[in-house]
Amino acid sequence: MTSAVPALSALVDALSVPTGFGDMSLVRSRPDSVRLLGGIPDPSVLPVEDLRRSLDQVWSAGGGAASLRYSATPGLDGLRQWIAEREGVPVSRVLITNGGMHGLSLAVQSVVERGAAVAVDDPVFPLLLRVLELSDARPVPVPVEADGLDVDLLAARLADGERIAAVYTVPDFHNPSQGTLSAAKRAALVALAEQHGFVVIADDPYRELRFAGTDQGRRSFHDSEQVIHVNTFTKTLGPGLRLGWLVLPTWAVDGVQRLRNRQDSHSSTLVQTLVEHLLTTDPGGFDRRLETARALYRHRAGTLVGLLRSRLGDQLELRDPEGGFFLWPRLRDDDLDPRDLHRRALAAGVEYQPGEFFAVPAGPGSRADDGAGTGGYPSTDAARRLRLAYGDRTDEELSTAVDRLAEALAGAERRAVVTR
Amino acid sequence: MTSAVPALSALVDALSVPTGFGDMSLVRSRPDSVRLLGGIPDPSVLPVEDLRRSLDQVWSAGGGAASLRYSATPGLDGLRQWIAEREGVPVSRVLITNGGMHGLSLAVQSVVERGAAVAVDDPVFPLLLRVLELSDARPVPVPVEADGLDVDLLAARLADGERIAAVYTVPDFHNPSQGTLSAAKRAALVALAEQHGFVVIADDPYRELRFAGTDQGRRSFHDSEQVIHVNTFTKTLGPGLRLGWLVLPTWAVDGVQRLRNRQDSHSSTLVQTLVEHLLTTDPGGFDRRLETARALYRHRAGTLVGLLRSRLGDQLELRDPEGGFFLWPRLRDDDLDPRDLHRRALAAGVEYQPGEFFAVPAGPGSRADDGAGTGGYPSTDAARRLRLAYGDRTDEELSTAVDRLAEALAGAERRAVVTR
Repeated sequence: MTSAVPALSALVDALSVPTGFGDMSLVRSRPDSVRLLGGIPDPSVLPVEDLRRSLDQVWSAGGGAASLRYSATPGLDGLRQWIAEREGVPVSRVLITNGGMHGLSLAVQSVVERGAAVAVDDPVFPLLLRVLELSDARPVPVPVEADGLDVDLLAARLADGERIAAVYTVPDFHNPSQGTLSAAKRAALVALAEQHGFVVIADDPYRELRFAGTDQGRRSFHDSEQVIHVNTFTKTLGPGLRLGWLVLPTWAVDGVQRLRNRQDSHSSTLVQTLVEHLLTTDPGGFDRRLETARALYRHRAGTLVGLLRSRLGDQLELRDPEGGFFLWPRLRDDDLDPRDLHRRALAAGVEYQPGEFFAVPAGPGSRADDGAGTGGYPSTDAARRLRLAYGDRTDEELSTAVDRLAEALAGAERRAVVTR
Repeated sequence: MTSAVPALSALVDALSVPTGFGDMSLVRSRPDSVRLLGGIPDPSVLPVEDLRRSLDQVWSAGGGAASLRYSATPGLDGLRQWIAEREGVPVSRVLITNGGMHGLSLAVQSVVERGAAVAVDDPVFPLLLRVLELSDARPVPVPVEADGLDVDLLAARLADGERIAAVYTVPDFHNPSQGTLSAAKRAALVALAEQHGFVVIADDPYRELRFAGTDQGRRSFHDSEQVIHVNTFTKTLGPGLRLGWLVLPTWAVDGVQRLRNRQDSHSSTLVQTLVEHLLTTDPGGFDRRLETARALYRHRAGTLVGLLRSRLGDQLELRDPEGGFFLWPRLRDDDLDPRDLHRRALAAGVEYQPGEFFAVPAGPGSRADDGAGTGGYPSTDAARRLRLAYGDRTDEELSTAVDRLAEALAGAERRAVVTR
């Protein structure tokens, strides 16, 4: 009997092996390393004890068994209602997800035809490129400025005949480049979407973490039938919950629910029950917690910015963040080798994400990730930058990190030396 | 400015609107209705209080914050290790999922090419047909007998030139038809898979709930590189957790993980932490709980079978179940109209799943669901049967259900009358 070996489907076979961002095999950590790696909330401002209290109260009221039951695909009514009121949308448009990544994958699979083009932030949240692989979608980079995506440039390209199924952008405290899409640009982007029939996938996990500047609003997005709003409790209540939501255009509600139902039925009833209880039994509690969190992140951002400006201001150019978790400083010396700097930083005991991980591959027919770990052909200055995440680092750790970064910068090779 | 309306992707647009099984809009419940509808475990044998204790102990030991962190895609190490030891496989082959449905959708998307054929149990777990739509797969019905899938018939069809990417079967306490795939047939199915290069998707959620007969073993499946084993804690610890696992062939591990990572990163760290603690801090606890559960389900199955045989033995033909949650009795009177019976049962206050919901649509190019709610063209006697689920019903409820079923049967129209 001959043996015939089965194979992976073309869909899965084409999914890239993660390299670069998120690939831990690239990092040779020192045990005492300070990690400025991820958009991770500080445990001190997460509802650790509140969740225990929620479970106690739900159980004491006899709700334990119900939290172990099947529930409906859209999510628990009380949780969806709380979200709908906060978003200012009908509850029918709210779908509970297993976090922001899940919302992105549902959105992309629901509105992007296989092989279609999707305009994306450049630099971009790298995992979005991996989500696009689920639809074999081609990323079209659009530069992100201090006030967000360059909507005028996108309009010009569309006028030139470029056809896209969707635009992906992080409107608030952009990951990695800090900026926030202005109110005027939000309205312009929606108008463009209505004109050209594409969908805006607005990925907004950091929205609630504003600690400076002015909110640029959400109504132009929520009032449009062209926008899928993707959000999550990851940055406010904790990544380990795996709980988020979509605000969907009315025409997409049934379809996205059908897709989600076929994936894994519904999000954990237990997790939804605990979070629903947490949010609804203490009406002001979520905002009080956010105030504490914002104060902490404002302080940490200020600490890191202050240290970098005073110690390394002649070597790094940076802007003050208005919220979120990231700094995106640029190396002033264009001849400095950023890969050598990264190796030296790891050796010195400070870890960050090199800017090249956030570049978008471009060119007709290019894959979302070329497997080389460089992201293909950077069209911005991403490779000259560093993404520094400060959300879960203490003042002392931030100070140590800057000392070590200074050490790495002092030793880093200049390109002239490398290429001799 | 012309407005252009975006649309759902072809993938999502083709997903059928649920009709029949699981479509609550079909059921006009009486408030006092007895529901024999779902494969739902009884809350009394679920670890409601144990989960509270787990959370208390994890939190008291300082593990609360860790349970709110990101974790790795394959799942928590301790949980995977516990499962691997129980399954008798290397831990590297275990992937944590959000329950059985999630395992099925990952398996199908990972090994079934778009448009390929998949041989499935006939009658079949209806939600599997919806999962197949994710890969636009064509179901090929293979009858299920008292000792499981008709492997000889499948072999004959393959010899005749039928080509399939996978076989889907529920090997233990088949949903809906009660049977268990014999040890000899398991070995024959694996040999056939090796010969023809297809994958066996073995969906085994009821395996631990055997209360009679002999275990037919799992080694022939686990020792083969052609089998994806799909399992879940849904029937043993509770559906609301949304926690299950896959045992993957080694060649599929990386690919399935890449797909899962792009969907929603990982299963809830909180849920995994609580279940891991529950399972590993009391080594014999899971099996003690199962003994209690099996005794309960043995008792309920016996109660329902006894009542049906003594009251309705002349009208219903049935077999004793050896485990799981379902009876699959057949109407002895071939002229009785099963749809009229179902309407009368609903009116009398007893709810069950009509057998026609479990039929498989057949014929070249037929869709997984034809939208008519009948499941297409029944190739077995499914339409003459009723699926009765007893897992979460008390003796008194079962007795009331049989009274009401007797009332419905007494009034049900015969086909001769309907067609006059």
